[in-house]
Amino acid sequence: MTHLKCLLTIVLLGLTFSLQAQKKNALFQYGIADAFVGGLFDATYSLKELKQHGDFGLGAPGQLDGELTIVDGKAYQTQANGKTTLLSDNFKTALAFVTFFKADTVFTATGDNTAVFQQIDHYLKKKNGMYAIRITGAFTQLKTRAFPAYTQKPYPPLATLLNTQKFFDIKDTKGVLVGYKLPAYINGVSIEGYHFHFLSDDRTQGGHLLNFAAGKLKIEIAELRDFKLSVPDDSDFMNFEFKKKQNVDLEKVEKGH
Amino acid sequence: MTHLKCLLTIVLLGLTFSLQAQKKNALFQYGIADAFVGGLFDATYSLKELKQHGDFGLGAPGQLDGELTIVDGKAYQTQANGKTTLLSDNFKTALAFVTFFKADTVFTATGDNTAVFQQIDHYLKKKNGMYAIRITGAFTQLKTRAFPAYTQKPYPPLATLLNTQKFFDIKDTKGVLVGYKLPAYINGVSIEGYHFHFLSDDRTQGGHLLNFAAGKLKIEIAELRDFKLSVPDDSDFMNFEFKKKQNVDLEKVEKGH
Repeated sequence: MTHLKCLLTIVLLGLTFSLQAQKKNALFQYGIADAFVGGLFDATYSLKELKQHGDFGLGAPGQLDGELTIVDGKAYQTQANGKTTLLSDNFKTALAFVTFFKADTVFTATGDNTAVFQQIDHYLKKKNGMYAIRITGAFTQLKTRAFPAYTQKPYPPLATLLNTQKFFDIKDTKGVLVGYKLPAYINGVSIEGYHFHFLSDDRTQGGHLLNFAAGKLKIEIAELRDFKLSVPDDSDFMNFEFKKKQNVDLEKVEKGH
Repeated sequence: MTHLKCLLTIVLLGLTFSLQAQKKNALFQYGIADAFVGGLFDATYSLKELKQHGDFGLGAPGQLDGELTIVDGKAYQTQANGKTTLLSDNFKTALAFVTFFKADTVFTATGDNTAVFQQIDHYLKKKNGMYAIRITGAFTQLKTRAFPAYTQKPYPPLATLLNTQKFFDIKDTKGVLVGYKLPAYINGVSIEGYHFHFLSDDRTQGGHLLNFAAGKLKIEIAELRDFKLSVPDDSDFMNFEFKKKQNVDLEKVEKGH
């Protein structure tokens, strides 16, 4: 074996294993939705770590300070003051969902969010499938929101802060909706149904999507086969009192009676 | 670079990546507990695939045909007739939980299951931690159970079949309890709390643990940091009607009102 052949073999082996590690079709989640909604707003996971698991997704900055959107491996924070900022890799997130996005289904759809989601539903035959969805095009209208930072601990439950949300009415903007449709069985650990964050093409506007209207949009969908979860290791998370998920049948089966 | 050096480099690279792939401290789960309890008993995942994710764990054979226990990379089925059988890699499971077990905490405990679990609780400081637990020693008494096969589709909910369980009273036996303690937030997707299957040292007795009494037992615990989930891709699973996991707060937050 020549020197060159050996180097090539090593490089190819390295590439093969890297590609396996960065496996497509997996949803990676950091944190637990129920914990975040319950008031665990501290950011404990860096974007550097997060990007090892995906280049496409969404999440929450620490202390509830706006909304996080990840597109093409770049992460942006949209704050309650309306500013959207490119984030450095040492920025941390409290809750995030990412995947290495590679579409398996592409089509066009038209209308408002209700109509477009109905058209997407038509393509997604698996009721309990996990899907990453990228929607791009010209939007005539978008309504998004972002929470303002809440800096005082202990943080209150998120639902008590809904009146602090700032809403953005965005008109005639090109951009991308980054999100997921997840199955009912994962709700609580994660977030079921359609869930999108928006980012304008000029990266100056964004936020958590509430509704939209648009002409022709490009819909790209990637079915996700695996779910990987990593959780905070701090005492706030490890001691958090989760609401009991009553499952009488499961309990009976485990106890035998 | 000589031929030998090159080969060594390639082998070392291969080993490094294999070890990364077989990462310790991760719980791998195939299937969803709520789906299994709801009557999805078909086995769709081979032990060959399962063993790529762990050498220690438990699960369910297809058609509810007994209990599955995996120790030191070998998988055993304990059936309702009391027989325990070593399984080949092409045997399939409907629901399984495995990890590459490497203890980080070892101690001894004494007494019945209630007393021993209390002693374990004393060591497990993280209420929301995930733990793999291996308990070995001489048991004076064990009560286990196994379901008989249910071969007629559609399968009924598992809780309606509790009266078909066969119970085993095992006396003065050396063996191992293989199991997990999982946090409340994962219940439904997985199974919260303590969950063990038993296997005697001579591999002739086993089953889903209901209770035990013992003298001195060796307790080995491995804290698990990550959770990996893979689910069936068949139409039974993909169309299964999961019970709605009501989470009013989460819904409000997502919708913005």
